Amino acid sequence: MKKIALLPSGSVSHEAILYLLNGEPVEFVHHKLISDVFMSTVEGKSDYSVIPIENTIEGSVSLHMDWLVNEVDLPMQVEWVYPSIQNLIGNAAEFQSNDGTMDYSKITKIWSHQVATAQCRQFLAKAAPQAELEQVGSTSEGVKIVKENPGQGWAAIGTSLGAATHGLNVLAERITDHDNNYTRFVLIGREPISVNRSPEHIKTSILVTLPEDVPGALHQVLSAFAWRRLNLSRIESRPTKKKLGNYYFYIDVMAAADSVLLLAAMGEIEALGCLVRVLGTYPGYAYESEKMEVK
Amino acid sequence: MKKIALLPSGSVSHEAILYLLNGEPVEFVHHKLISDVFMSTVEGKSDYSVIPIENTIEGSVSLHMDWLVNEVDLPMQVEWVYPSIQNLIGNAAEFQSNDGTMDYSKITKIWSHQVATAQCRQFLAKAAPQAELEQVGSTSEGVKIVKENPGQGWAAIGTSLGAATHGLNVLAERITDHDNNYTRFVLIGREPISVNRSPEHIKTSILVTLPEDVPGALHQVLSAFAWRRLNLSRIESRPTKKKLGNYYFYIDVMAAADSVLLLAAMGEIEALGCLVRVLGTYPGYAYESEKMEVK
Repeated sequence: MKKIALLPSGSVSHEAILYLLNGEPVEFVHHKLISDVFMSTVEGKSDYSVIPIENTIEGSVSLHMDWLVNEVDLPMQVEWVYPSIQNLIGNAAEFQSNDGTMDYSKITKIWSHQVATAQCRQFLAKAAPQAELEQVGSTSEGVKIVKENPGQGWAAIGTSLGAATHGLNVLAERITDHDNNYTRFVLIGREPISVNRSPEHIKTSILVTLPEDVPGALHQVLSAFAWRRLNLSRIESRPTKKKLGNYYFYIDVMAAADSVLLLAAMGEIEALGCLVRVLGTYPGYAYESEKMEVK
Repeated sequence: MKKIALLPSGSVSHEAILYLLNGEPVEFVHHKLISDVFMSTVEGKSDYSVIPIENTIEGSVSLHMDWLVNEVDLPMQVEWVYPSIQNLIGNAAEFQSNDGTMDYSKITKIWSHQVATAQCRQFLAKAAPQAELEQVGSTSEGVKIVKENPGQGWAAIGTSLGAATHGLNVLAERITDHDNNYTRFVLIGREPISVNRSPEHIKTSILVTLPEDVPGALHQVLSAFAWRRLNLSRIESRPTKKKLGNYYFYIDVMAAADSVLLLAAMGEIEALGCLVRVLGTYPGYAYESEKMEVK
């Protein structure tokens, strides 16, 4: 059975990989630190690592990208998006009013990761302005604290999987102010992985380091894609670790790395004096919204 | 006296703004949540808010950028970089060996923000592999916990300002694996601010939303900058909140918004059917490394 390293049980990473695998049996190896998630596969203790790569509250996207670029030499094997759904979690019995509805005014403290809390600001200001907001290192940690301290009117913000893991109730579903927050994940590992889903597209992630900081150099690089009608779905400049003001570009191209056009474009960019490195060429999976209910 | 809203006392934001102000007297208003830091200036309770905008462990860059774009309509007034220096912090007396050197093998637990811990992975694996790593919501929270629980061999990872704030010692300086981690900050507010420093450059941050997802559209936009030799120091695609797969581009241009060339470029880009929004035009300050010692 394949081993997959990821963040703690009940994290968004955990919900997201369960969604991707669609029932495929695997063994999960949970780690508190994203660096340990990376290293698990690097050191051969796991086959794949689940890495949030865009729009995540679990760790730091820039740190994860730096790791992919500087510390780890494992290709991306699959990419998928999963909604970042936060819920108000607690013991429902503590907050029920006589008519059976939830009385959020009974909440004294709300525990969560600070970014999750910030994403639910409007809901909290309206539903439970009296509640004190407490920060912890992850949403699953907050749920655990609430579980371990019953009867005090405490609640947490986290995933419904986190609530289920700790035997608590979802008091209010999807309390994030913007309902369309999606996190992008990749699996890194040595071998391709097959999942029970139809891919939406094939994508290639490349790093381009420009020869020097010259105006228009990026434009020249993009020309190589543009006239071939290769669509870019993401482009991001990132400072190199070498020198401040020295940048590389992270570019996602909607084509396979061995396609004639992309091979030609990369060859041309190298001929311009740029360094090109392929981080992975892989299928990408969309999130099917009819499966939105994660129970 | 100007009021400045920012994250808690002892945070990197706090060290960074003290560096920028260079002795200028201001009043600080600390908030636990970045959303409250933003809202403080929006609601007129402060004159400026300190927002980490690139390469930060305090909150989430993508969340902060989404706020700047979607929730807040305050211009950026100044930009500066500050090194993200993490230190091992504790009560030195607890870890001193007989010859006066630090004995890290006496450390039982290390409290910090998970991203800070991940950034110090190599140091920790070498110096204190026995220590249990505990996650908290911010580095300053970790320092506070260590202060409140003396005699147990606990240490924290955080800023030297955090150590000073809580009356603890820096046991080991600059323990991050890469010494060249810089965080980029902006001050947002209604009025320009003058600081006791010489700016390195003038920069303009703009948002460009492409008319539709067409191959080469970004290339067309960049052409408008390239042939005018306007240098871009950052470019980043970000999903809009409207629809998945719909992107805007965040672009930093090394020119003032009222310069002839940039005005012309923006006009041309609008004529192509793009939406252009100026997020700010402001001086940028480099970090002078001779002042690296933050005591």
